[in-house]
Amino acid sequence: MDIAEEALAAHADWKGKLAFDPKMDIATRHDLAVAYTPGVAEPCKVIAENPEAAYEYTIKGNTVAVVSDGSAVLGLGNIGPAAAMPVMEGKAVLFKRFGDVDAFPICLDTQDTEEIIETVIRIAPAFGGINLEDIAAPRCFEIEARLNDALDIPVFHDDQHGTAIVVLSGIINALRLTGKDTTARVVVNGAGSAGIAIAKLLLSYGFENVTMCDIRGILSSAYEGMNDAQRAMLAVTNLDDAQGTLVDAMAGADIVIGVSAPGAITGEMVASMADDAIVFAMANPTPEIFPDEAKAAGARVVGTGRSDFPNQVNNVVAFPGIFKGALQARAERITEPMKLAAARALAALVSDEELCEDFIMPDPFDPRAADAVAAAVRAEA
Amino acid sequence: MDIAEEALAAHADWKGKLAFDPKMDIATRHDLAVAYTPGVAEPCKVIAENPEAAYEYTIKGNTVAVVSDGSAVLGLGNIGPAAAMPVMEGKAVLFKRFGDVDAFPICLDTQDTEEIIETVIRIAPAFGGINLEDIAAPRCFEIEARLNDALDIPVFHDDQHGTAIVVLSGIINALRLTGKDTTARVVVNGAGSAGIAIAKLLLSYGFENVTMCDIRGILSSAYEGMNDAQRAMLAVTNLDDAQGTLVDAMAGADIVIGVSAPGAITGEMVASMADDAIVFAMANPTPEIFPDEAKAAGARVVGTGRSDFPNQVNNVVAFPGIFKGALQARAERITEPMKLAAARALAALVSDEELCEDFIMPDPFDPRAADAVAAAVRAEA
Repeated sequence: MDIAEEALAAHADWKGKLAFDPKMDIATRHDLAVAYTPGVAEPCKVIAENPEAAYEYTIKGNTVAVVSDGSAVLGLGNIGPAAAMPVMEGKAVLFKRFGDVDAFPICLDTQDTEEIIETVIRIAPAFGGINLEDIAAPRCFEIEARLNDALDIPVFHDDQHGTAIVVLSGIINALRLTGKDTTARVVVNGAGSAGIAIAKLLLSYGFENVTMCDIRGILSSAYEGMNDAQRAMLAVTNLDDAQGTLVDAMAGADIVIGVSAPGAITGEMVASMADDAIVFAMANPTPEIFPDEAKAAGARVVGTGRSDFPNQVNNVVAFPGIFKGALQARAERITEPMKLAAARALAALVSDEELCEDFIMPDPFDPRAADAVAAAVRAEA
Repeated sequence: MDIAEEALAAHADWKGKLAFDPKMDIATRHDLAVAYTPGVAEPCKVIAENPEAAYEYTIKGNTVAVVSDGSAVLGLGNIGPAAAMPVMEGKAVLFKRFGDVDAFPICLDTQDTEEIIETVIRIAPAFGGINLEDIAAPRCFEIEARLNDALDIPVFHDDQHGTAIVVLSGIINALRLTGKDTTARVVVNGAGSAGIAIAKLLLSYGFENVTMCDIRGILSSAYEGMNDAQRAMLAVTNLDDAQGTLVDAMAGADIVIGVSAPGAITGEMVASMADDAIVFAMANPTPEIFPDEAKAAGARVVGTGRSDFPNQVNNVVAFPGIFKGALQARAERITEPMKLAAARALAALVSDEELCEDFIMPDPFDPRAADAVAAAVRAEA
């Protein structure tokens, strides 16, 4: 049985990957009176007096909504909310498994920006945080920004920031390994939500020279048809206003990060990069360039999105700890300093002894990851 | 420690009464590949082709949303969505404990009818049913009706129909005991959502003579200021258009059902009823009349909402089985025949040998209740 058949059979067997279970026995009338009426009136009254007490007396303190409109699900595209459910349930499984955070899938039967925003605002009271997932760009930018303004709980688009944090953690260690620093020339190929978030976080970390490309070439003043989010990046990337294609951008670059399409990077492009080139090729399941080809062309460090190659960029080392720390701190937002601290904490999990070309990022199953990230986020909160 | 103190301490200890737990171990990369990427794409693709498959592959097939706007919570009134959470979590606990149905609390940060309706429609894809809870009348009527029209999953306002089903089950057995039948004269005191639902279900069952009252007297053509739902009841209740107060309505009546206020029924009123009078006094925690006083005044059967007296009218014997059966049948609605079948199934759980003045309804912990109700609902679906 291949993995597809096995997964389908397993999902049919599970009939939903999570169950919502009581923490107490209800065996007697007394149990009922404590957990339900009349006793339940007491925490209700306390919360009515002081809404903050919801964190003490309800699931809010440890529960995140995994919200999607089903518009950009995995590599499957716009499959809608019902078909997105297995992914959102899977995300909830990972929240619990890796961060001990309860998460509930909310798949919305609308893809309208205003309707998504108002719906999430209205269901927010039960939740201590909102994880946006698989929502198409550019609407995902506005949804995240406006929800963060409207709500007093953190709203975090994992496809953007989770990815950016893990990429930055890998880049930090690739710098350690190669002796490069934040003067390195960086190319980000792919100008969707993940690419923009990665570029932004690298700039926040201190990188000075970042250029973004997409399938039509370098984002520059000559590039037509950019969306608002892409246009805003022109003020902080490609400061020389270089024009051309990915081939031009990669010539002499130190780092290339692909969040684009299978095969988008060739061996020739990698060969044109600076010495000790760092290549993250994260298209899934087929990367922009396979590690062996990139190595043969001169890359020193290669990361992908796949678990069967070294240096897997896997958000699971970040988002459970991000929300765990934010919930513990009752943070109202996931700030830029929190993201940087999370990336540094992940990078620091790889010791000097362990650090090598094939090990720049903690394993997805590293049991220290969530707590290290949570502690870093808490410290910044 | 009294029950209030104990409940508050227990809620602080639980920090939320339920947790959302994975059904599988995620111990290896293979486990991840089956439950999450890449394997998860398979059930997604199947559901994208056939939305009905969501019942097979996701939590939808066994998950209910417990939806409240916090406007009419227990006896606490309009305490808002955050303060309503402990009650909605408690309801979810009961769904799981008594019906093995997963339920998730959705407390809405709006009390606007249109906004509630559109929000529930948008979050519906994850759920196989919607349990409306503690939403004030008359908006609860419109919300339930319009959601049932808009959605292909059942929407059920438990405060109305769950209560009505359990009351009818008790009335059926009170008729068995007293030899009365559906020609009996019935008075329902309280013309809010529960009172109207009870009157409607009694009429559906076959009762011919039902009169509704509220604090201002008998609902009749002379009664001013009725809402639409109350006005609609005039066509099917009080067919003689009697006028007056509860005192007038109860004189000679066989059955009185109180969903009103503490002390609303006096011994004199009960003494004025027909022989073998049946009194359900369900105001909580203090009933319209206490059982000993009603008995002293001549009542033969007395039910209340309290667990410390015989014949507790407790929705917990109904709603878990109602949704369990509806989910098993993938019913699109909870129909009137399903409600009647549920009430008959509950009544039938009390054997001829058991049936007596102090035992007309199954105990809330009767392990047969949910399955009996579910089977009845399924058979009607």
